[in-house]
Amino acid sequence: MRDFSQDHRWLSLNTATIRKSGGKDLPLPDIIEACVRRGIRAISPWRDQVHAAGLAEVSRLVRTHGLELSGYCRGGMFPAADAAGLKAARDDNRRAVDEAAELNAKCLVLVVGALPGALQGKPAHKDIALARSQVRDGIAELLDYARQARMPLAIEPLHPMYAADRACINTMEQALDVCDELDPRRTGEPASLGVAVDVYHVWWDPKLQAQIARAGRDRLLAFHACDWLTPTTDLLNDRGMMGDGVIDIPRIRGWVEAQGFDGYSEVEIFSTGNWWQRPHEEVLDTVIARHKTAV
Amino acid sequence: MRDFSQDHRWLSLNTATIRKSGGKDLPLPDIIEACVRRGIRAISPWRDQVHAAGLAEVSRLVRTHGLELSGYCRGGMFPAADAAGLKAARDDNRRAVDEAAELNAKCLVLVVGALPGALQGKPAHKDIALARSQVRDGIAELLDYARQARMPLAIEPLHPMYAADRACINTMEQALDVCDELDPRRTGEPASLGVAVDVYHVWWDPKLQAQIARAGRDRLLAFHACDWLTPTTDLLNDRGMMGDGVIDIPRIRGWVEAQGFDGYSEVEIFSTGNWWQRPHEEVLDTVIARHKTAV
Repeated sequence: MRDFSQDHRWLSLNTATIRKSGGKDLPLPDIIEACVRRGIRAISPWRDQVHAAGLAEVSRLVRTHGLELSGYCRGGMFPAADAAGLKAARDDNRRAVDEAAELNAKCLVLVVGALPGALQGKPAHKDIALARSQVRDGIAELLDYARQARMPLAIEPLHPMYAADRACINTMEQALDVCDELDPRRTGEPASLGVAVDVYHVWWDPKLQAQIARAGRDRLLAFHACDWLTPTTDLLNDRGMMGDGVIDIPRIRGWVEAQGFDGYSEVEIFSTGNWWQRPHEEVLDTVIARHKTAV
Repeated sequence: MRDFSQDHRWLSLNTATIRKSGGKDLPLPDIIEACVRRGIRAISPWRDQVHAAGLAEVSRLVRTHGLELSGYCRGGMFPAADAAGLKAARDDNRRAVDEAAELNAKCLVLVVGALPGALQGKPAHKDIALARSQVRDGIAELLDYARQARMPLAIEPLHPMYAADRACINTMEQALDVCDELDPRRTGEPASLGVAVDVYHVWWDPKLQAQIARAGRDRLLAFHACDWLTPTTDLLNDRGMMGDGVIDIPRIRGWVEAQGFDGYSEVEIFSTGNWWQRPHEEVLDTVIARHKTAV
């Protein structure tokens, strides 16, 4: 297992972490500048942040600074209530692949979606099996496109508390079942289809260690770190700083690295009430410190 | 599958549902009276409510009215940070078995506990595997005691969002693994060890149907209904009224009844911001109506 205690060379910043500074929106170029100044070598930006700054400009900044992208956030949201919605999702996911390729991301992270309309508080139906079927079909189709672009797709199992509105793939086992069905021969180098392991979403799973072993090096495309707070006061925006919660992050990282994973450890914190209210410089300095002691 | 649309003969009320009326505490005798007046034939009371009213008095009321108990809430909370804590949990669980037997409950529901201290915001450690080991040992020991009292133990897998502070058994598969380990021959009639299926906790699980079939009639000791709201605004106290959320409750009830389950359907709603603020008569009437249309 790699020693993270001496430096932060394997730290990547998911740019949602400092999406806000002192409660105000912080543009992606400013986020990149703050990372570069601290020797952070990799980021994982969100599409809305990239679009706001302009893909060409972000691509230029990334290349100028020699930044790597541990992932691109995010594709997915496959289910829809009608054919037009399914087509719109397909087209948007292809654009996400293209953007990820332009930015030379290690993978496109997929938050696969769930019951159509649920995120807006108006679920079109209650058939989660149907949503899962649409997710499977959506990934199958996107996989062909992504292979041509040589862009690995990383299915991110989301915590079951997001099963209704954000992602109906909720365990590593379920994600790997999809991988094995759609890509049984584990094609590509790096793999064309795999998973993103976010400790926040999977830490509770009694089968986690076994499923990480099942994934193996080729299906482990990304590793995300943050912490689970007790109490957790918000289902979405109360992700904790590493070390402030109950997840034994080094243990999980050990399982992942035992499979040969040698990529970045991506820090991803959404925190409406806490970190997003603080100056981003303080947040970044804390992320760097905690990455040494708690990841 | 039983037809619930014509009457509410298979409705049981978990008494947490009207723990408060108009925002104020409602004593268990008043809850019982309100149930009896509406022809509700079964309840599942919480221990703190029973203790407040007095076990003997509650026992008298239950017998006088011919009420059944679909379960008794609750035993569990096995993990502890030291030997004294483990012993205290053991002793308290034995008292819970005794109380359940006095009230002639169908089963003692087990919310098994998780990281010691986490519920108070001060987790003693981060070793969920240790907590799970203590849970296994605690159930094993309690099972001997419960068998003598002829009181079935129903492990309730809790939603993974409670893995840190309330229950580290989080899927039906995990609960049934414990059942199979501790009671491989499925002893007792009714079974001495099984599960409580609460749709709120397990609806998201892609393996739910298969695990219900694995459980079979003898391990299916209780069925709990409420709904998952989108959005859910609180991790504990935002359980929805049946029909207000996204759970396909009849589908899950169908899976359970296909195994031969013919017990009560227990309605259990915690709702700080909504139902607990309303008059309990309104809540009960709504429960009865929704039990006909959405369960």
